[in-house]
Amino acid sequence: MSEIAKTPKAPYYAVIFTSHRTDGDKGYGEMADKMVALGSKQSGFLGIESARENVGITVSYWKDLESIKEWKKDTEHLLAQKEGKNKWYAEFKVRISKVERDYGFLNNG
Amino acid sequence: MSEIAKTPKAPYYAVIFTSHRTDGDKGYGEMADKMVALGSKQSGFLGIESARENVGITVSYWKDLESIKEWKKDTEHLLAQKEGKNKWYAEFKVRISKVERDYGFLNNG
Repeated sequence: MSEIAKTPKAPYYAVIFTSHRTDGDKGYGEMADKMVALGSKQSGFLGIESARENVGITVSYWKDLESIKEWKKDTEHLLAQKEGKNKWYAEFKVRISKVERDYGFLNNG
Repeated sequence: MSEIAKTPKAPYYAVIFTSHRTDGDKGYGEMADKMVALGSKQSGFLGIESARENVGITVSYWKDLESIKEWKKDTEHLLAQKEGKNKWYAEFKVRISKVERDYGFLNNG
């Protein structure tokens, strides 16, 4: 169950990953869980949000570009081990962005 | 049906809107359609991606901060007319970010 990430005061970084899946699981669920587990153990990880309908959108938040680079190194290894991204993704786009400002209201529950 | 946005070469801006809905539609669908329609008519609008499961994530892409400001003005008017955000959102977060780099592969279909 994805929640709204409790990120610190801006600036920080967001990796916006948007994708269309191929049909069938083919180990995808397990791999995705591992990617999140790798991320959340990593220094500089601030949170992650995820939802899928027609497209899937996963936004992970990071302290700096260095942390993102480290996570990318780990997850690319994981993706390579599993015969590459073509198996799971019909198409995808990754966007590295710097959050300059944020606002809103969150429950404390 | 949301697709992966065909954004131009970075840099450009992304507004990441993450939310938990309240129960029931209460005119939400109509309002959301209007917000997207307002955005897509606006100068500087580059695309939008959206998915909802437990949380909803909508990412809209913009040429510059000025375009975002204009859209915000229009949509806040719309939200105010409809008795505010509390009616539809139990909680939400808006993050204004600058996309510095992107990569991936997209189908042309």
